[in-house]
Amino acid sequence: MKILPVAILPVAYFISAFSLITETRAQTTTVHIPVKIGVLPRGKNNAITDVAGVLVGQKTLIRGTDIRTGATVILPHSGNIFQEKVPAAIFVGNGFGKLAGSTQVRELGNIETPIILTNTLNVASGINAGISYTLSQKGNENVQSVNTIVGETNDGYLNDIRGRYVTEKDISEAISNAKTGPVEQGNVGAGTGTVCFGFKGGIGTASRVLPKTSGGYTVGVLVQTNFGGILEIAGVPVGVELGNYFLSNQLNNPVDGSCMVIVATDAPLDARNLERLAKRAFMGLAKTGGIASNGSGDYIIAFSANAAVRIPHAAKEQLHKTAVVFNDDMSPLFMAAIEATEEAILHSLFAAQTLTGRNGNKAEALPKDKVISILKKYNRYQP
Amino acid sequence: MKILPVAILPVAYFISAFSLITETRAQTTTVHIPVKIGVLPRGKNNAITDVAGVLVGQKTLIRGTDIRTGATVILPHSGNIFQEKVPAAIFVGNGFGKLAGSTQVRELGNIETPIILTNTLNVASGINAGISYTLSQKGNENVQSVNTIVGETNDGYLNDIRGRYVTEKDISEAISNAKTGPVEQGNVGAGTGTVCFGFKGGIGTASRVLPKTSGGYTVGVLVQTNFGGILEIAGVPVGVELGNYFLSNQLNNPVDGSCMVIVATDAPLDARNLERLAKRAFMGLAKTGGIASNGSGDYIIAFSANAAVRIPHAAKEQLHKTAVVFNDDMSPLFMAAIEATEEAILHSLFAAQTLTGRNGNKAEALPKDKVISILKKYNRYQP
Amino acid sequence: MKILPVAILPVAYFISAFSLITETRAQTTTVHIPVKIGVLPRGKNNAITDVAGVLVGQKTLIRGTDIRTGATVILPHSGNIFQEKVPAAIFVGNGFGKLAGSTQVRELGNIETPIILTNTLNVASGINAGISYTLSQKGNENVQSVNTIVGETNDGYLNDIRGRYVTEKDISEAISNAKTGPVEQGNVGAGTGTVCFGFKGGIGTASRVLPKTSGGYTVGVLVQTNFGGILEIAGVPVGVELGNYFLSNQLNNPVDGSCMVIVATDAPLDARNLERLAKRAFMGLAKTGGIASNGSGDYIIAFSANAAVRIPHAAKEQLHKTAVVFNDDMSPLFMAAIEATEEAILHSLFAAQTLTGRNGNKAEALPKDKVISILKKYNRYQP
Amino acid sequence: MKILPVAILPVAYFISAFSLITETRAQTTTVHIPVKIGVLPRGKNNAITDVAGVLVGQKTLIRGTDIRTGATVILPHSGNIFQEKVPAAIFVGNGFGKLAGSTQVRELGNIETPIILTNTLNVASGINAGISYTLSQKGNENVQSVNTIVGETNDGYLNDIRGRYVTEKDISEAISNAKTGPVEQGNVGAGTGTVCFGFKGGIGTASRVLPKTSGGYTVGVLVQTNFGGILEIAGVPVGVELGNYFLSNQLNNPVDGSCMVIVATDAPLDARNLERLAKRAFMGLAKTGGIASNGSGDYIIAFSANAAVRIPHAAKEQLHKTAVVFNDDMSPLFMAAIEATEEAILHSLFAAQTLTGRNGNKAEALPKDKVISILKKYNRYQP
Repeated sequence: MKILPVAILPVAYFISAFSLITETRAQTTTVHIPVKIGVLPRGKNNAITDVAGVLVGQKTLIRGTDIRTGATVILPHSGNIFQEKVPAAIFVGNGFGKLAGSTQVRELGNIETPIILTNTLNVASGINAGISYTLSQKGNENVQSVNTIVGETNDGYLNDIRGRYVTEKDISEAISNAKTGPVEQGNVGAGTGTVCFGFKGGIGTASRVLPKTSGGYTVGVLVQTNFGGILEIAGVPVGVELGNYFLSNQLNNPVDGSCMVIVATDAPLDARNLERLAKRAFMGLAKTGGIASNGSGDYIIAFSANAAVRIPHAAKEQLHKTAVVFNDDMSPLFMAAIEATEEAILHSLFAAQTLTGRNGNKAEALPKDKVISILKKYNRYQP
Repeated sequence: MKILPVAILPVAYFISAFSLITETRAQTTTVHIPVKIGVLPRGKNNAITDVAGVLVGQKTLIRGTDIRTGATVILPHSGNIFQEKVPAAIFVGNGFGKLAGSTQVRELGNIETPIILTNTLNVASGINAGISYTLSQKGNENVQSVNTIVGETNDGYLNDIRGRYVTEKDISEAISNAKTGPVEQGNVGAGTGTVCFGFKGGIGTASRVLPKTSGGYTVGVLVQTNFGGILEIAGVPVGVELGNYFLSNQLNNPVDGSCMVIVATDAPLDARNLERLAKRAFMGLAKTGGIASNGSGDYIIAFSANAAVRIPHAAKEQLHKTAVVFNDDMSPLFMAAIEATEEAILHSLFAAQTLTGRNGNKAEALPKDKVISILKKYNRYQP
Repeated sequence: MKILPVAILPVAYFISAFSLITETRAQTTTVHIPVKIGVLPRGKNNAITDVAGVLVGQKTLIRGTDIRTGATVILPHSGNIFQEKVPAAIFVGNGFGKLAGSTQVRELGNIETPIILTNTLNVASGINAGISYTLSQKGNENVQSVNTIVGETNDGYLNDIRGRYVTEKDISEAISNAKTGPVEQGNVGAGTGTVCFGFKGGIGTASRVLPKTSGGYTVGVLVQTNFGGILEIAGVPVGVELGNYFLSNQLNNPVDGSCMVIVATDAPLDARNLERLAKRAFMGLAKTGGIASNGSGDYIIAFSANAAVRIPHAAKEQLHKTAVVFNDDMSPLFMAAIEATEEAILHSLFAAQTLTGRNGNKAEALPKDKVISILKKYNRYQP
Repeated sequence: MKILPVAILPVAYFISAFSLITETRAQTTTVHIPVKIGVLPRGKNNAITDVAGVLVGQKTLIRGTDIRTGATVILPHSGNIFQEKVPAAIFVGNGFGKLAGSTQVRELGNIETPIILTNTLNVASGINAGISYTLSQKGNENVQSVNTIVGETNDGYLNDIRGRYVTEKDISEAISNAKTGPVEQGNVGAGTGTVCFGFKGGIGTASRVLPKTSGGYTVGVLVQTNFGGILEIAGVPVGVELGNYFLSNQLNNPVDGSCMVIVATDAPLDARNLERLAKRAFMGLAKTGGIASNGSGDYIIAFSANAAVRIPHAAKEQLHKTAVVFNDDMSPLFMAAIEATEEAILHSLFAAQTLTGRNGNKAEALPKDKVISILKKYNRYQP
């Protein structure tokens, strides 16, 4: 396959033949996968942006034959994040990664910048972009300390990663173009050059909405998929059926890579329960057949976008008044995080397209017709 | 495979009257589940005892109408464990539990006693049994400090847990009768009164053997299952099909509970990589549909039974010479831990039988004929 | 020295000669040390009980020639702790210890029982006492899960620890006799048989009160001292001057042992900031010359006794409304925890008396006249 | 004060009057403090470089009126660190900081780049320099993943930190000029603009050598001091005597800041015991009167420079053969880390000189004559 079409039509693939319908609307994409994941209902756009206030921005770099990379940013809210921090936590599934900002999140329980995803060797660009964004915002004139959160996966198979092509400016653009609503998925932003389960990975997103009796909260997830194992789709052993999985002696099934998972919710949670929520997203990853291989940097960053639990940078009151979900009421949120993560990963695979890059390396898209056949074989096909 | 043989065959337990009388023939049980989990081959007995040197002992307490509990112990080796400690680590999936001994394992990287599983309110009996066992062993005459590892799940639905019926003596008996070879599963030992996914849970075990090219190591897992979520068997949505799952409004689907997972391997691993291995077992739990609900104490204890990496209590040499697996070679072990854990949990469910206990509470066995129908519906039935 | 006087007059030592005044009032003791620690003012009793609502109970076992042990319990409040849990956290300074209950505190952020201190091999008695206490309280008739917090140090030098003489009943008595007000220190309760810096250790307590401008909060600390290093008193190198310190080739300076530190405050803190507070108590331990040696189980348990931040076991409201101290306002509390811990450890040494125990082993009291000379030499003596 | 002398004579201060002798040899400095810290003997240069193979490089930026910053780098060895990684661990004393690279160190137990220290907003320059250094080394032509370790403190009081003046090139220069032997201290490198206990802080270093009977190992420490509390020098309450300490209502005593501590040793340690060693350095910090205030990013990075425990990037053998120190033999190393850290911090204060910077802000050097008077008052003066 030529890579040009990808550059031209980053999302405009349309696979009606087997009822995988990808609707393309003005640079955004809703991915429908032909299988049902879990039992909870999806949010409006089935995206992290279903959590009120959350924005996503992306910058895709596809240049020449060897540059296949980019950045994806998630903003907890559209205001001054530094002045109104959000409760947050990070769970390290497997720490073979270069995540920036983790220790301060653990210590203080909050995030004060956009969350930035890019490639392994461009984390520094992300840090700088987060600092520049913060320093330049109105009200931050005296800020001297900024803890930018930057995650990454290694797109070095398709991308000339040593070239470090993602600039601070690229990431600043992604921040600038961040918006609510549908999220572009697949070969886009930080997922432009990633590989997952031996197929083309990328950016994916999904969401779940709890019943009113469980609080009615929304949990949204966005993933950057670049990891391996034995692909399962709704438990169907797709990787095995396709003969492409870890330890299957397929040379083109690199188990290493990484997965960044961002979990947002409008449930009012403190950092401790957000850490617990993050851990459940790791369980969702497990359900796709990921094994958190040695070389995989699998991190989950969870935050609450509920405005009532924001933490002011300079508090006017003596005590921080909050109202948060009790431990006892967390389980439905846990289930939502698991389901949304599992589905977001699958979305990244279904949305991604075959891509050729560095040294002519090629990552094939998930062979959707074969996948559908397999889903049918196992009676899980749901068009 | 027919499911009737489960009652008749290797397990041979009868269900008479209301209570479960477990007659063990040859004291051992091999459980065959009619579905394939993963891709790696199983060990000889498909049990934690496939890891050379590991022993399992159990004591089952079924008395009157209300006592349904017991203890299960795992010995890393048959020698003096205190004098020859084993490298070990613990991963806390969800810390709603009373696990004893965890901080010392984390600090020193080893285990020096049998690992004991029992019910939530009898952890103290376990600690005392571990201490007594250690103090009384030849060569330990001067020992004044013993870190017993005791895990638990809450069998209070079927068992009069407030009665605290498991005595130090009961656990000492389990230690005494520990043996290699096949492991009794289901309503036995610490799994006597447990409930899993709304069905009768219990003790389960499984193992995986790596290809020679990946080291040829064995990973064995033993579980005490008492947790909830949405049961999936090899990815098949059994819980949903049976209409019995968390948030399904079934009153008899308590999501809380707990799961203890013991992972043994003959791979020579240090504590750090054992912690990583333990974390993968948690991924295996996720694949059965567990959600690590708020009230579930989900712990994984991993140790290496490889004699060459034992840590002498009183070293004769100046430095500890070891040869351990490199980080880069861990991924196949990770996959083995995931597969063995998933299968061990399923074994516990397939082996367990309907049991009535405290207050007439009843936990139904997994309805195996229905399950088989469901597996057939999804083309996963493999007799 | 004869041990009888200790048994008869557990606290009635009176050392006016060198201005160490130990006032004895109805079984309670206030220890004045002839040196100033830190800059913050002390609370009324200079004890953990200066934190409103906190109670301390103790049971001392001195029998025959070989039994020198006991238990000390701290109750966060006098109500039903299980039904009204307190926010809490644990910091592990060095995890060579058998602390029970830690993982649940970390996961759920609270404590639901008395905190119990005893010897290393009697942790099980503590667990059982905590369970019995909880199960028997009015309103807990249906409780089936109790996470007792039990810490320990090893008093095996003076005490026949292998005999495991502290019973559940002993600890229950300590719970029953728990009270507010002055706290008995030295050779009492869980400190009966402990050794610290090569001298007789024991129970110590102290408190600090913040200026109104920093919130006016009280931080109280109670310690069970049984560790080593190089004793420093207010920075004065007392251990070196006495020629008794780790690596000084004094055979009677065992560096191992342990130190349990309980930190209470009326500041409304959540679990995350309590963990941070706990870590500062470890800094206070460092200032006494402790080195957290390999064999020392150094744990700090911190809780907030502020009634407004209690966590109901069965919540009536949908969200947990709290008002807690901001991160930015924690530093004065940190300083208070450091100072109170340092002083509490010194109190334990000054209050303890020479004791002979198992096998005729003898732990000399800190030689107060020599210490005073040393303090004078370094111009730190403050009678 | 004018800052010119600082620029001209960064190390050539000579304070014989009170026996603080600062020897200046070709850009390097040995600082003698007039007081004895601890009991263990110092290494040859009393520097982190006393650990065989360890190199230190620095780049100082003092430009115009507002730029007072720089970088300090520590190389575990002079070879290809990426190809021959060193066992390492990080302890987070207080995580209000932007440390890069921590999660991978925790996961894999090693460090593969120079350790870089700089200011808070130039961490990205450090990451890039570490990557460039690694990518450009012979043998690393195919490297696509680099985990640079970058620590920082906030020099924004004296330095125009928002200007982000430390470039990748500056840090590369520091790496290039790294060398063994004496280490320049005070207002140099990453310590150029830092403030400690209300006085001018900076870079400090020290070392300790164990007796042969304890292994004869060396522990070296390097610190970047920028924190607060109540200064104590060898336990003498200098901060109180000078009336300059946290909560003393001195406006110029900012308690926040940070402290980076690097601990090197030639003892063959694995990552687990290095984490324990790191934690003891935090105890050394406590002994100087630091309180790990809310805003202080206090991190300790420990590594073993013993060539025999290096971890090859691409192993030729199947297992990693090592010989490491037993847990039981760690205590002397712990004491060495405490002493060396305490002394290194004091060195940074004694070596630093008064500096004026951004907005005319001025940090006074520790008033050495007053300090000596105070040490004399407390009979601790040792010229």
